[in-house]
Amino acid sequence: MNKTGLLSAALLTAAFAMPAAAQLSVEDQIEARKAAYQFMSWNMGKIKAQAVDGGVEFNADQMKAAANAIAAVANSGMGALFSPDSTMDKADDTRLKPEFFQQPEKAREVGMNFGREANKLQEVAASGDRAALARQFSAVGETCKACHDSFRAD
Amino acid sequence: MNKTGLLSAALLTAAFAMPAAAQLSVEDQIEARKAAYQFMSWNMGKIKAQAVDGGVEFNADQMKAAANAIAAVANSGMGALFSPDSTMDKADDTRLKPEFFQQPEKAREVGMNFGREANKLQEVAASGDRAALARQFSAVGETCKACHDSFRAD
Repeated sequence: MNKTGLLSAALLTAAFAMPAAAQLSVEDQIEARKAAYQFMSWNMGKIKAQAVDGGVEFNADQMKAAANAIAAVANSGMGALFSPDSTMDKADDTRLKPEFFQQPEKAREVGMNFGREANKLQEVAASGDRAALARQFSAVGETCKACHDSFRAD
Repeated sequence: MNKTGLLSAALLTAAFAMPAAAQLSVEDQIEARKAAYQFMSWNMGKIKAQAVDGGVEFNADQMKAAANAIAAVANSGMGALFSPDSTMDKADDTRLKPEFFQQPEKAREVGMNFGREANKLQEVAASGDRAALARQFSAVGETCKACHDSFRAD
């Protein structure tokens, strides 16, 4: 595991081990995690438009800012926003399957993969290499999809 | 203006000058900007709990991650999410006053102040100085309040 991977693992472990603030209500957990993914999605959309689709002029500074935002989400300790009573069978306004807590090793794996690839996205964006950024965008997207396939209802 | 301030100004100018992606619908702009502020609010809450209120154990790594997230929001080019037809008199689910576009110099000033203080928050968090972080948390909060007072309906 490289330095970035180790960092992600450490952050994720910290996130799962202890809440960063007084424990949020289930409703607030769900609202905050949906906001985080929505903010990330907006930033992924910018990278898609500029580095992948190419319909918008490539701006390296904007790509760096977008990748920084995505990495910041990945490193923000979102584990604190997933409590066992926040799954779709127990709470409203969420598509989180109970399997997320029934398969903790799998859940940890998808989280760590996302963190690792998001941090790599930040590194690649800093290089200004558009083709490499497009490839890494796909790598991040695969980790999003892996979690959705396992733990998000359609 | 220091280097951080210049960077913020440049990013804000870029954000207002050109969309980073194909122009979003008004509904998508409102959804994305609310998500960004909500994600930021969660991270501000962590800093408040650990550095200001002190009810939760201070964890320097978590504070760095939270401040990175707040700065990433500030630097993400949110100007692209504010179009003149996205104010509360023309669109749903927003409290943005039309004054935001009637007072463009004031709007730019509150945005630049927020960017500058959020970037300074990131620097202070990296130092691990809890008291300094508490002070800078207040400085960021003042810039949030300034914008709310001028441009957000109660």
